[in-house]
Order: sequence, then C-alpha cells, then structure tokens
Amino acid sequence: MKYKLLENNIKSKNSFLCLGLDTDINKIPKYFLSYDDPVFDFNKAMVDRLHHKVVAVKINTAFYEARGKEGWISLERTIDYVNKNYPDLFTIADAKRADIGNTSKMYAKAFFDKMQFDSITLSPYMGYDSVTEFLNYKDKNVILLSLTSNQGAKDFQLKNNLYLNVVSESQKWDNSERIMYVVGATKSDYLTKIREIAPESFLLIPGVGSQGGDFENVILNSTKKNNRILINISRAIIYASNDKDFLNSAEEVVDDYNNRTSLK
Amino acid sequence: MKYKLLENNIKSKNSFLCLGLDTDINKIPKYFLSYDDPVFDFNKAMVDRLHHKVVAVKINTAFYEARGKEGWISLERTIDYVNKNYPDLFTIADAKRADIGNTSKMYAKAFFDKMQFDSITLSPYMGYDSVTEFLNYKDKNVILLSLTSNQGAKDFQLKNNLYLNVVSESQKWDNSERIMYVVGATKSDYLTKIREIAPESFLLIPGVGSQGGDFENVILNSTKKNNRILINISRAIIYASNDKDFLNSAEEVVDDYNNRTSLK
Repeated sequence: MKYKLLENNIKSKNSFLCLGLDTDINKIPKYFLSYDDPVFDFNKAMVDRLHHKVVAVKINTAFYEARGKEGWISLERTIDYVNKNYPDLFTIADAKRADIGNTSKMYAKAFFDKMQFDSITLSPYMGYDSVTEFLNYKDKNVILLSLTSNQGAKDFQLKNNLYLNVVSESQKWDNSERIMYVVGATKSDYLTKIREIAPESFLLIPGVGSQGGDFENVILNSTKKNNRILINISRAIIYASNDKDFLNSAEEVVDDYNNRTSLK
Repeated sequence: MKYKLLENNIKSKNSFLCLGLDTDINKIPKYFLSYDDPVFDFNKAMVDRLHHKVVAVKINTAFYEARGKEGWISLERTIDYVNKNYPDLFTIADAKRADIGNTSKMYAKAFFDKMQFDSITLSPYMGYDSVTEFLNYKDKNVILLSLTSNQGAKDFQLKNNLYLNVVSESQKWDNSERIMYVVGATKSDYLTKIREIAPESFLLIPGVGSQGGDFENVILNSTKKNNRILINISRAIIYASNDKDFLNSAEEVVDDYNNRTSLK
C-alpha cells in the first residue's frame, strides 16, 4: 500500500489533486493526431508537466476501450510510463468493475498484475465476494463507489441510505483497511456522515470541475478529521485549452485548485 | 433489437441456452497454445460446433482483459467472427459497466459501435443517467443486474428489496422496453417476484452449471408467463473436457440442458 507515501505527498506537495486522464482523442490538440499514439503522447505531456503538483493519477478505462485494441495499447503505455517515471504517484484504474469471485480474480489480474495499477474503482452492487479477490492484494487498494456525483445517485444510492450501508458493511470485511470510497462532491452534506463511519479511510472525491460541485464545502467538511482525501479533476485540467498552450492552461488550473485548498 | 429473432430462435431451436465464453487460456486444451491466438481459435471451435443448439453467446470481458492487449484482440476477433458467421445469435458483452453519462457514452461506443455487440450487462448502482446512453441505441439491449448468483447478493441486493427496486425503477425509464435483467438462478424463489414487475422483459439467468443452482425450479418459475428467458452456462460447457474430445463433451452438456428444458 502506498497510503503512507500518499499522505506524505499530500503534505509535501500541498495538494489533494488527482489528475484524471479521461483522454478523448477528439478533444486533444489537433497536432497530436500526427503522432503514432496521440492519446499516450498527450497523457505523457500532461504527466510530465504536472507530476510534481498532483499526488495521484486516475485513468478512466471507458475512454480507452472506446478505441478498441489501439485504446487498450494507449492505456497500457500510459500506466507503464507513469509507474516507471513517477513511482511516487498513486495510480487509480477508474474501471468500476466487480463480478462473481472467479471473474473478479481475472479483473484483479488485469489491473493489478498485468498493468500494475495501485488501485481500482469497484461497484459494490454484487457485495463482499465480488471485492474479495481485489482486497487479497497486500499492496493494492480498492476504491468502492459509495455516493456518486451524477443525478442518478438518487435512484438507488440515496434510498434507504444505501450509500452509507455500503460503507458500514464494507468496513466489516477482511482487509477493509485497504478500502477507499468514492464520494461525489455535489453531495458535500453527505461527506460528514461517511466520515463518521469510516474515519480513517481515504475518500476519492470526483465531481469537481466540468461536473460541477461545491468545492470549498467539500474540502471543509471532509478534512476536519484528517487529510485523507483525493480530489479528482479530469476535464477541467486536461481540456483547459486545446491550443498549443494547453500545458500552461492545465498548470494554471492545477495551481488555482492547489491554492484554494492549501493546507497552510 | 433482435428480440423477435431471439424469440423465434428459442422456439425453433428449442433452446434457452446462452453459451458463456469465459475463456481462460490456462483451462483450454493444451494443443491450442501452439496457435497464434489460442483463445480466439478455441472460441471459434466452440461456436462452430454449438451455434445451432444455442440462441445467444455471452463473452465475459474479464477473461480477455486479464491478458492485456492480446486479450482485447481475442475479444474483438471473437465478436467479429460470431457477427459475421452466425448473425442469428444474440450477443452479450458481459462487462458489468456503467459510469456518469459522459463516460457511459464511451463504453456504449466501445461495445455497441466498435465491437457491435447486441447487448451489454450493466451495474445499476449509479442509476438512470448511467444507463441512458446505452438505451439510446435503438437496435441494442441493456441487461441490468438485479439479483446475482453469488453469496454477496445478500449484502446489498436483498436488503430493502433493492433487487426489486432496480427492476421497478428501471421499468419507468425511457426505452425501458430495451432492458433485460440478470437474475441469479440460485435464488429461484425471487424470479416470480421479478416476473410480476417486469412481465414482458427478457431475463438472463446465470448461475447454472459450475456455479450451482436449482435448474428445474428456475425454468418452471420463470417461464410460466412466457419464454423470455436466457439461461447462461459457461464453464460447464466450455470446460466439459480439456482433452481432444472437448467439443463432443461440450455438445453433450448442451444437449442435456436442452432436453431438460424442452418446450415440447
């Protein structure tokens, strides 16, 4: 587990930021399209520029799968590059998987062995034994969906407090110290309740930036007890500009967020 | 939508069977390992032998992703081969995806446009707008998890009748006529309840074969009203033998199941 390293990095970099590489080949600066692997090269440029100002990198698998095997190659190259060049960054496969045990074991193999991600996001719907195979990895983390940032969160997650039930149940599971939770930033009021049930767990907070979200409230509510949060920003950073100055624009967004959430 | 074709095939083939290609390279007959793409060639052999005795093919993505980009190539080759040679078969990407709308759109692109599956399994946890982008495809189907066949189903699905709530809520969504449901065969008592709420929907029933399950009860309870069920069998068919006679053994299992569930 990179927990300790992650906590140290949050302090030393004065940042909670997770860089979300939801890289859509149609939205990156056009000149990348003349490269062999535009998505990988774009990701490389982003990480090379921002690695010292963020503590984690999250790669959403959907954007890669949409391009078929070429996309899967960009995905593998990106995680390999990050692991090799910036081993201090905490890496997240935002894959929202989970299946019966036998099958989850295969997903764990894909994301933890084959690609060496530090963690993976999982949907809790199928319960304990759909998560076990991931939790069996000593050095890896599982990030369970609790409350997501989309409108549909009200359909099931908010009924009968399912989102809280997910946290309280999963806290009883073996190796639960390896579980982190996804908590949507647009529901900042709920963060306090989750923090009560899982006071020590890292929370991954998406929903800021392009998705909207009451950023300062999120930070205030969730950091009362400790600094164990990661704030993911994807589109607002990587598509800050799609002109030649895209790296400068991206860095400005990162600086702005880091300043607003300064630990000092 | 291939609904009508699927219903006709169930009658004409006298079969509810869905062939589950959860193909693990370590479990197939050893001589395939000398081929360029052992998993594809194994899948091809299975489908060539069994296509006229089953009505659907389900490919579980985990087993392919575990092998990285090579696995993704086997996945693409398999679905392309089935679509080209056996267009009457209803194809299912057993991927258990779903994310925020913007991201689900990318998954839909991957499985419906790039790979041309007829349907995909989705986890309902994130609610309505995580499914919309898939339901927007006129000729495609969504298969929502309701009640799964694993032990962990009791953790969340069976609490506060979440599994029923998923069915009743989703029946209100736009294009809900394109939704099918996964209902675990080990919970045959619950099938009747789901059938009451969604009398017209196709049900995909896994959990028979290697996973266990009270097969005859499943059939009896769920076919009272209509024949809109698919019964998935994966390991019990494809690993019936790993010797040279594996195709004969697989076909015997298929014949046995088809006989036990004869419509006549």
